[in-house]
Amino acid sequence: MPQSNDLTKMTFDSGMVSVGLGDTPISTAVAQTGSVISYRGYSIKDLAEHSTYEEVAYLLIYGKLPNSKELAAYQARLSKLRELPPEIRSILEHIPMSAHPIDVLRTGASMMGTLELEGEQGRSTAHVADRLIATMTSMLPYWYLFANRKHRIATQSEERSIAGHFLRLLKGRSPDETFTQALDTILVLYAEHEFDASTLTARAVASTLADSYSAVTAGISALHGPLQGGAIEAAMELIASFDIPLEAEKSILNMLQSHRLIMGFGNHTYKNGDPRSDIAKGLAEKLSEEKGNTVYFDISERIEQVMMREKGLYPNLDFYAATTYHLCGVPTFMFTPLSAISRTAGWGAHVIEQQRDNRLISPRADYTGPGARKYRHLADRS
Amino acid sequence: MPQSNDLTKMTFDSGMVSVGLGDTPISTAVAQTGSVISYRGYSIKDLAEHSTYEEVAYLLIYGKLPNSKELAAYQARLSKLRELPPEIRSILEHIPMSAHPIDVLRTGASMMGTLELEGEQGRSTAHVADRLIATMTSMLPYWYLFANRKHRIATQSEERSIAGHFLRLLKGRSPDETFTQALDTILVLYAEHEFDASTLTARAVASTLADSYSAVTAGISALHGPLQGGAIEAAMELIASFDIPLEAEKSILNMLQSHRLIMGFGNHTYKNGDPRSDIAKGLAEKLSEEKGNTVYFDISERIEQVMMREKGLYPNLDFYAATTYHLCGVPTFMFTPLSAISRTAGWGAHVIEQQRDNRLISPRADYTGPGARKYRHLADRS
Repeated sequence: MPQSNDLTKMTFDSGMVSVGLGDTPISTAVAQTGSVISYRGYSIKDLAEHSTYEEVAYLLIYGKLPNSKELAAYQARLSKLRELPPEIRSILEHIPMSAHPIDVLRTGASMMGTLELEGEQGRSTAHVADRLIATMTSMLPYWYLFANRKHRIATQSEERSIAGHFLRLLKGRSPDETFTQALDTILVLYAEHEFDASTLTARAVASTLADSYSAVTAGISALHGPLQGGAIEAAMELIASFDIPLEAEKSILNMLQSHRLIMGFGNHTYKNGDPRSDIAKGLAEKLSEEKGNTVYFDISERIEQVMMREKGLYPNLDFYAATTYHLCGVPTFMFTPLSAISRTAGWGAHVIEQQRDNRLISPRADYTGPGARKYRHLADRS
Repeated sequence: MPQSNDLTKMTFDSGMVSVGLGDTPISTAVAQTGSVISYRGYSIKDLAEHSTYEEVAYLLIYGKLPNSKELAAYQARLSKLRELPPEIRSILEHIPMSAHPIDVLRTGASMMGTLELEGEQGRSTAHVADRLIATMTSMLPYWYLFANRKHRIATQSEERSIAGHFLRLLKGRSPDETFTQALDTILVLYAEHEFDASTLTARAVASTLADSYSAVTAGISALHGPLQGGAIEAAMELIASFDIPLEAEKSILNMLQSHRLIMGFGNHTYKNGDPRSDIAKGLAEKLSEEKGNTVYFDISERIEQVMMREKGLYPNLDFYAATTYHLCGVPTFMFTPLSAISRTAGWGAHVIEQQRDNRLISPRADYTGPGARKYRHLADRS
């Protein structure tokens, strides 16, 4: 029985608003020193500025930044892995438009695990992570276009990146490079983020020595909930509800006065601002200028200013990521599913780490229920 | 923000072999004082002896033992909920026989969540738990008989209990009452067991305010792994590998000498024996006598004696549950899936409890990875 595993040091945060955070660095994959986030030691700023999502997925899953040759081979492999098995297409066609889109990925990932068994034909955890990243990028637009328009789209494309492939399938035409690059960077920002609820879930499942499909399916499940995955859609709906910055300002002030929650602000980890937010803001600004229409950006920035002035709260990653996704033409209900596809690289890395030095994650808790109760037979119960 | 939630008191066990256990009572649903296990204060012995699985599911999900009228209404409702939607049947027909059977339930439960949305048409968490218990009981034999023989079975039956319905579908004929009752009692024993990895998983997902389908799908995922769900199949394979008790004794001694792990023994929670094991042993003995063939029981008992004599280890629930399932005619690969169906009542109870006083389960861990690393551009990487 191995005697060291970082999970044994894990303590439970007391809730969304955290106690005593900031003194402790946070995770195995994300170092937090002040406001620096890093994946395996590389600053998120460098990765967002200079690396693609494929480089970052490789870094997380395979443990190192790829060189040119490795990256080209990895991109080619991911492209080949995009094709959906006919069983998956059939299932996607059975899922109605009313379904929560994260559940489309949850069901698709689970079904993949029944078709392409891990461990058989040399399928490693890394392979399963790659295959799920590639297929889920096809699943989401395939499902959407079938449920919505009864279109059966092809799930191959000439696009080299995950971001490009997704936009190609969604739009039915080759995407503008600016949008592909912006989406690619957003995927980099969502690829990994320490022991949040979804990663804890994936690791708890992996700790039973379950296969990686089970771990990823469970991780996706945790993104169904608004506390983990759904805030970004709420942020977008808020931004899109205004026509001009002044209207946003007035409305936010009213909302604050009636103690309504403004989504996309505050983060129990980053008291002095989330460094990923600045990157997302830069993308949103650039895309707005490119489009010649800065209204969403201006509204977003005004909301940011009001929240800082009134509450001292910084935007978290979701806030400007929402604006950026929107400017890329991604429908709002696909924001969290896209983040789930990206995060599969992080979950894959955590599952591999868990397997490397495994101990069953099996916590204890004090019993707070009733004491011993006398059993009454069915006929005697009122 | 609520200030009390038992999950904040949760500490991580250091692995399968636990440290300092026994001083602390263990969960919200299972009280442990010495060797007494109870569900909501009722001793497992009373429940196993006098109550059916449906009574126990009602106790866990609805918080009280039902009276006669409530029980009759609950049984009638569960019976109505057994029918599989056509989309589910279609998916089950796409899952090959080579799939891990727990993944059949994982995929089926996930798909149910896309078809019958929680919160719509008055669907509560309790309803979703009931619906999943009822449908999964139909899913497992439906999938098996289609994958194996291309049979499309009807998923309704006149059987009043979950246990009877399952055996009816599996065998294609009305089961003998003795076997239905034994299976029913095994389901009672598996219905709930504190914060194991699967329940932690279900609660972590529920803590994001995800729907109950997501929580149950994640809980099922944790039963894919041999450390949580698969031990029982290994125990059965061991028992079935012997023809007579003497052969079992010799072989177990040899296995112990070469330090091989004997599944179905030891439990980090119950140092002085798992009280559920005695109940399962009684069932196995009774069924053997009824069948007029006690060879499996005799072999099981001999293995138990050798393990106690040589290692001081008691059997855990899985050991005699395996023998009992087998004597009921359940194929070995369905043992864990049946336990998952039963445990859905426990997960349902935990999800409801989590929702009642929710705080996001979001743990922290020390970062043990590399320090800040200098970024090298793609062309400069070796």
